[in-house]
Amino acid sequence: MVAYSPRLARLIESLRRLPGVGPKSAQRMALHLLDRDREGASFVARSIDEALEHVGRCPSCRMFCEGGNCLYCSPSRAESGQLCVVETPADLLAIESSTPYRGRYFVLMGKLSPIDGIGPEELGLSLLAQRMGGDRVSEVIIATNPTVEGEATAYYVAEMARAAGLKVTRIAHGVPMGGELEYVDGSTLAHAFSGRQTLGA
Amino acid sequence: MVAYSPRLARLIESLRRLPGVGPKSAQRMALHLLDRDREGASFVARSIDEALEHVGRCPSCRMFCEGGNCLYCSPSRAESGQLCVVETPADLLAIESSTPYRGRYFVLMGKLSPIDGIGPEELGLSLLAQRMGGDRVSEVIIATNPTVEGEATAYYVAEMARAAGLKVTRIAHGVPMGGELEYVDGSTLAHAFSGRQTLGA
Repeated sequence: MVAYSPRLARLIESLRRLPGVGPKSAQRMALHLLDRDREGASFVARSIDEALEHVGRCPSCRMFCEGGNCLYCSPSRAESGQLCVVETPADLLAIESSTPYRGRYFVLMGKLSPIDGIGPEELGLSLLAQRMGGDRVSEVIIATNPTVEGEATAYYVAEMARAAGLKVTRIAHGVPMGGELEYVDGSTLAHAFSGRQTLGA
Repeated sequence: MVAYSPRLARLIESLRRLPGVGPKSAQRMALHLLDRDREGASFVARSIDEALEHVGRCPSCRMFCEGGNCLYCSPSRAESGQLCVVETPADLLAIESSTPYRGRYFVLMGKLSPIDGIGPEELGLSLLAQRMGGDRVSEVIIATNPTVEGEATAYYVAEMARAAGLKVTRIAHGVPMGGELEYVDGSTLAHAFSGRQTLGA
């Protein structure tokens, strides 16, 4: 074991809390910050403190927002009557960055997973039911992940939307663009095959 | 472009200052900290602030140290009379973690590189000369990297040590353990060949 001075050791330990950062990267980051970018280091510390203090959850869509001013709940987004249900903030950002969709969202902050004690309450599904009922929603777009839990969640949300008399759609799953049939896994290919669509004449 | 709320955008931007962190990782880290590990986030911020405030340079070996109490300059380390010269704190830590060497160090914090304006002054070589002269040093072990600049630095430091009448050694360069001759690059192999050592009977 290498002996670090106590505060350097703490800094390395704390950086390991970041996702994807192991002991080697944490040491490299700590030495870089102390040796070459002390200004950047205090920028990181200040940004974290400010974000912790000011970034909260939007009470309507559950995405991160600041000062009650949610970027994804603006009135212009309500026009289409569409509401897209995603699992996480990262999923919302992925849709925003790659698709032209500019409707409203609902972020579940997880997926149904009874084994981990995550049920409809934890996902705020009563809030979602309220929004489906009273928020001029005409179509619910389900964009949960195609995992076992994601599919279960999709099924549950679809039932809710149908009960509220709304149109329900699910984003397509199939062979990814640029992928080759030969190398795509069997379950994706089976999904793509059974989900085939009629081409226009 | 995705629209982030301003403080979330700043947090992501600041995390990109960490080495090896691109836009995707920075977003992932920021969302992770805000969503799942707010305690970890403030731990990171506090550790950075404390390290910036308390971690300085040892005036003798130039390694990071706290409160004038250098781990690598303790009296027990002086006994062997050896002084190992390395380029960076990371190099020192690598030697500490993999070798039994527990002598003293001198961290250059760089290497001779006239193109980047790094000369003997920037590397604290006058301080190194003082230590060679007065610090009960008998052997200087040069452990700079086997790059062009590292070799130039090694040459310069070796000349200084010889001028001070000290024994100079350089860590061995050759075929890495577990490596195969067939796949080792030519210059490493040539180095290993010319640096061959006599085996005992």
